[in-house]
Amino acid sequence: MSKHTIYYTLTDEAPALATASLLPIFQAFAKEADINLQLTDISLAARVLSLFTDRLPEDKQVEDGLSFLGELTADPDANFIKLPNISASIPQLTATIKELQSQGYEIPDYPEAPATDEEKEINSRYSKVLGSAVNPVLRQGNSDRRAPAAVKGFARKHPHSMGKWQKTSQTHADYMRDGDFFSSEQSVTMDKAQEVRIEFVNKSGEVDVKKTLPLLEGEVLDGMRMSASKLRDFFEQSLQEAKEAGIMWSLHVKATMMKVSHPIVFGHAVTVYYKEVWDKFGDLFDELGVNPNNGIGSVYDKIKTLPQSTQDEILESIHDCYEHRPEIAMVDSVRGITNLHVPSDVIVDASMPAMIRSSGKMWGRDGKTKDTKAVMPESTYARIYQEVINFCKTNGAFDPTTMGTVPNVGLMAQKAEEYGSHDKTFEVQENGTMRVRDAEGNVLMQHDVEKGDIWRACQTKDAPIKDWVKLGVTRARNSGTPAVFWLDAERAHDNELRKKVKLYLQDHDLEGLEIHIMSYNEAIRFSMERMMRGQDTISVSGNVLRDYLTDLFPIMELGTSAKMLSIVPMLNGGGMYETGAGGSAPKHVQQLQEENYLRWDSLGEFLATAVSFEELGIKQDNAKAKVLAAALDRATEQLLDNNKSPSRKVGDIDNRGSHFYLTMYWAQALATQTDDAELADKFASVAKALVENESKIVEELNSVQGKDAGLEGYYHMDLDAVTKVMRPSATFNEILAAI
Amino acid sequence: MSKHTIYYTLTDEAPALATASLLPIFQAFAKEADINLQLTDISLAARVLSLFTDRLPEDKQVEDGLSFLGELTADPDANFIKLPNISASIPQLTATIKELQSQGYEIPDYPEAPATDEEKEINSRYSKVLGSAVNPVLRQGNSDRRAPAAVKGFARKHPHSMGKWQKTSQTHADYMRDGDFFSSEQSVTMDKAQEVRIEFVNKSGEVDVKKTLPLLEGEVLDGMRMSASKLRDFFEQSLQEAKEAGIMWSLHVKATMMKVSHPIVFGHAVTVYYKEVWDKFGDLFDELGVNPNNGIGSVYDKIKTLPQSTQDEILESIHDCYEHRPEIAMVDSVRGITNLHVPSDVIVDASMPAMIRSSGKMWGRDGKTKDTKAVMPESTYARIYQEVINFCKTNGAFDPTTMGTVPNVGLMAQKAEEYGSHDKTFEVQENGTMRVRDAEGNVLMQHDVEKGDIWRACQTKDAPIKDWVKLGVTRARNSGTPAVFWLDAERAHDNELRKKVKLYLQDHDLEGLEIHIMSYNEAIRFSMERMMRGQDTISVSGNVLRDYLTDLFPIMELGTSAKMLSIVPMLNGGGMYETGAGGSAPKHVQQLQEENYLRWDSLGEFLATAVSFEELGIKQDNAKAKVLAAALDRATEQLLDNNKSPSRKVGDIDNRGSHFYLTMYWAQALATQTDDAELADKFASVAKALVENESKIVEELNSVQGKDAGLEGYYHMDLDAVTKVMRPSATFNEILAAI
Repeated sequence: MSKHTIYYTLTDEAPALATASLLPIFQAFAKEADINLQLTDISLAARVLSLFTDRLPEDKQVEDGLSFLGELTADPDANFIKLPNISASIPQLTATIKELQSQGYEIPDYPEAPATDEEKEINSRYSKVLGSAVNPVLRQGNSDRRAPAAVKGFARKHPHSMGKWQKTSQTHADYMRDGDFFSSEQSVTMDKAQEVRIEFVNKSGEVDVKKTLPLLEGEVLDGMRMSASKLRDFFEQSLQEAKEAGIMWSLHVKATMMKVSHPIVFGHAVTVYYKEVWDKFGDLFDELGVNPNNGIGSVYDKIKTLPQSTQDEILESIHDCYEHRPEIAMVDSVRGITNLHVPSDVIVDASMPAMIRSSGKMWGRDGKTKDTKAVMPESTYARIYQEVINFCKTNGAFDPTTMGTVPNVGLMAQKAEEYGSHDKTFEVQENGTMRVRDAEGNVLMQHDVEKGDIWRACQTKDAPIKDWVKLGVTRARNSGTPAVFWLDAERAHDNELRKKVKLYLQDHDLEGLEIHIMSYNEAIRFSMERMMRGQDTISVSGNVLRDYLTDLFPIMELGTSAKMLSIVPMLNGGGMYETGAGGSAPKHVQQLQEENYLRWDSLGEFLATAVSFEELGIKQDNAKAKVLAAALDRATEQLLDNNKSPSRKVGDIDNRGSHFYLTMYWAQALATQTDDAELADKFASVAKALVENESKIVEELNSVQGKDAGLEGYYHMDLDAVTKVMRPSATFNEILAAI
Repeated sequence: MSKHTIYYTLTDEAPALATASLLPIFQAFAKEADINLQLTDISLAARVLSLFTDRLPEDKQVEDGLSFLGELTADPDANFIKLPNISASIPQLTATIKELQSQGYEIPDYPEAPATDEEKEINSRYSKVLGSAVNPVLRQGNSDRRAPAAVKGFARKHPHSMGKWQKTSQTHADYMRDGDFFSSEQSVTMDKAQEVRIEFVNKSGEVDVKKTLPLLEGEVLDGMRMSASKLRDFFEQSLQEAKEAGIMWSLHVKATMMKVSHPIVFGHAVTVYYKEVWDKFGDLFDELGVNPNNGIGSVYDKIKTLPQSTQDEILESIHDCYEHRPEIAMVDSVRGITNLHVPSDVIVDASMPAMIRSSGKMWGRDGKTKDTKAVMPESTYARIYQEVINFCKTNGAFDPTTMGTVPNVGLMAQKAEEYGSHDKTFEVQENGTMRVRDAEGNVLMQHDVEKGDIWRACQTKDAPIKDWVKLGVTRARNSGTPAVFWLDAERAHDNELRKKVKLYLQDHDLEGLEIHIMSYNEAIRFSMERMMRGQDTISVSGNVLRDYLTDLFPIMELGTSAKMLSIVPMLNGGGMYETGAGGSAPKHVQQLQEENYLRWDSLGEFLATAVSFEELGIKQDNAKAKVLAAALDRATEQLLDNNKSPSRKVGDIDNRGSHFYLTMYWAQALATQTDDAELADKFASVAKALVENESKIVEELNSVQGKDAGLEGYYHMDLDAVTKVMRPSATFNEILAAI
């Protein structure tokens, strides 16, 4: 690769659509600094197709963009901009397969219950694209996320809406007090590099080696169990409590990322809530292949082949449940989609902050918002949401105009604490013992388990921890902000990390820094107390908390996590600049298809690209790149100040209109800067042309709105067709082409 | 005084009644160790009468027992046992005066609005017995309160009831976010001894010196203001919130102790809740002398002279309020006494723990328990109750069988932080400035104030703080328990104390001790997190928190604060042994009068007397006293184990029956101990007689129950008549007399 190449990822859904408009703009500017901005396809469809290169004809093969970038992470010059992608659930995967098949790609169906060797092989291939499959490959560094000053300043001047909290709100977070992963966690640090075995021992003493794991010296290994029977008891009790109190019930998991454990948890919720349905039709469902782990939606899908009278009977039984069960929070009350419909619809790290921002209420069946029991069975992180809820009941909603900020330094490198770790998660098939033994056969940890329990292991290597401590201290030093290591004194894993953090902190000069190590409840409370008073606090957290906190705080502070600056300083020296932690926004795609209006806000792309250019400029001594970066940041500030972000409704500028304004401001900023006369000269005329044609371009962009966009497909759209839709202004396109 | 004299106080209500039975028992045993157990009358009636020694004929004069004991506190050999007494509200004072007058004591009425010089003089005399008038005199040391091991062990084996908490409970503590004492507090430490002036400056610049205060070097002086208009706004908003949410509204103040400020706060609550009534009849009420600070009860009292039709109109107007105001929590739902009836009925430090113990519910008009908005306008301490409520909603009620204990070391000596400080509290009469100036005229602190605002100052001398730090460290050392200094980083006063505590901690060897300094929310949370896990934590707190926490934790841990061991190690070396922090129990008196059944539990007296004997034994080298003490402790344990505490209903043993069993166990313990043969021999026969006559004595004691006790008076009963009622067993009396 050229040292001046930046890789820009093509992903899925709204960000992919926006890329069709935005990338040509970035490229037009970048080439003036000899930067080569290269598109790399890591969309779900591309990842699926790349699994079957051996089966597809040459003209239908696609390059494995993800593997390419994965290898690039080792390069000290690596520089890439990563947009949000789909972490596929099984329903999303099967939909993608179906769409690709309809486009003539001869790829096999996904075998949900693989029986033959071939099916198992296919299943194993597909497992590589399920869930959180992209991040573990690319995130070869720890994480540095913060609200850029321009964004924070904008939120203070133009605060987003924050629902008022009632002191009498009945909303609360509910979680297991016993029998969950938290209460069973065991953890051990390797005193030498070795291979350990994860084994299941049945009641007859037969040993089944589930997995062997090569571990490094200093690596931390955890094992933990969730009891299926206690989980089901907990669900039943939580449903009864919600019913009795007359509030709604909602489930908040992360089935996409925790792709083995959380669908099972979700499935238990479905079969407990709809207990009578399963009591009555469970055998029939088994025959039909209904999988509760895919949601109650799976019932609707699979019963279509049944006689109408049986279908009616089943639907009636489902509706009977609504009579004596609490109301379920809705994902889409207009279309009648409940919280238990599809596991990928409610994602805890986004759904909980959204609820907290909305007075602790969720949407009911009648389209009204109501107090809710927010159920997150696993208590490890659920407790922080209860802490936030209690805080808001006591102190009222946070005020975006005065609140401080909580940036995050997250442990992430080398798949640290990758909790979804599907390859180390097992649904136990019979009563017995799960254990981990070292190379000498010593038992490092063990759990008594029962059929149906979920057992999982988790790895965290030492080098990333050391780097994470360093990054935390560096950020505290550079920002002059107190930093809190979130390590829970009641978690076995965290206690291993506490030892390491205390040790590695000694490597740094801490003079004048405020560094704390706190349990989660303490840490979030401390951060909130400060935040309420306008003070900033860095959260230095593990991987899952990184994910949760970088939605929770930004959504409260900025109204969205998409506006965060998200940097991955790679262990090897390269950098990844991530954008829009707020997901890939399926609803935006729907709106574009129906109304040719894309509400996606590319702010994250603006911010990330500026940092990417700046880093390249510094590393490769490319002065023009630095000038481009500084001007882009000024343009972004101006865009925010002038309120030229996409609105939400037809008639106003959308994503494309905001790209136009960014371009205009960027060109103006370049024209007026004095660091590089050549660039100033070059862009003076561009700026002039854009300003003169402003109303014409906006008119051209907006005139397409309000009608069907005429796009086909969803996961694998035709890029040319998308480009046509996303670049409808001939005037704008000409000016760009002329640069 | 003899070095072997112990003073036992005669107080009021239930404890005074119990003394008539218990003191003769203690005296009979004590004289075997040459201990002189002397009764000293500090009852409200005695204190009132001693104000008028100059006016009463000699045969009606009473000794000023309180002053006598007050002087005794300076004696290094002082040893007295102090039972709970009435902290008189104005209604209690006027009732006492009325009763004494009816008994032929010619004392003047209490002039509520003194006009003449004579009235002012009388008012000034009476002010000495109002509110917390006893404790400031006697508590010449800091406070050491803890649950005795026997009591804690008993509670673990025989837990009291604890209402289950719903996660959906709407109960919460509500308090002012602005305009209260907390948010206006200023504090300064004297760099030398000097006299300061508290001044009011009106809008014309005229200076009115309200008070001069001689202060010592190192003394901390605070000034703070509560805005009347913000207080009233707060009440109005809180009422509307409660109404809207459909929960009850309750007010929790401490009008008895905070005898100037809290009745005013209470009065505002009354006139805001019954706003229409005052709008309509306010002028008439002024004429009649209705004082809202005495509660809505004052209206009922004063309107009796009006024509029936006017009375009806007023009553109707009052009842109209109940229609559009939230339901008020009841003090006595059977008799229709609301929370706003009389200011002395609800005392925050007892009422909030009672609510917390009862699922966060209070009694409604219909005799059912309901969720409540618990209003405590001043936020300084109110926030800790919200913290407890949030904790219970999240974690459920505490479990007395497993929970840890939170003993207290309280700053109290030399009237430290005596917040009720009536002599430094002012209701502002016109808009202007309240300020404090030093001897040179420099302004030490000042507040803009408006008519109706409450301004108060508070003093804390240095020597008590030093002693308090020492006591905290000593208790941490002796008990091996972490100790937390509760000092809020957001309070001006506490920040002055933080400096002193950090300084004085350096005087002690802290090796191996866990000592923290935390803000209130942190401190209570830390203590609760530990308590839930069965761990103990010493609270080292200021004076008001001492009062609140030694009700809050004991009521949760033991079901009552009356079972706490409460020691005041005097600054000069003496010791006061306090009993029953749980108040003087007016309802008990009523039950005795109606059913001749006294449910008062003298456990606190048993525990305190044992410590009192032990201390005397150690100090005066009185071995027999030590033997009596150890045996008394064993007797108390046995009493608890055998469940011989008073029950609550006629037919079971009451206070008197429990005294008999204590006596029997005590005599047995003395008979079987081997440290003192003489005592063993002496009490063997006593034990024998008691055991042999057990059923007879219990029969004699219980047979009087179920009918009117025939006692006259309330505040000043005839001691002989009381003694007759309280010692109805001739058999028991004879055995005691024969010792």
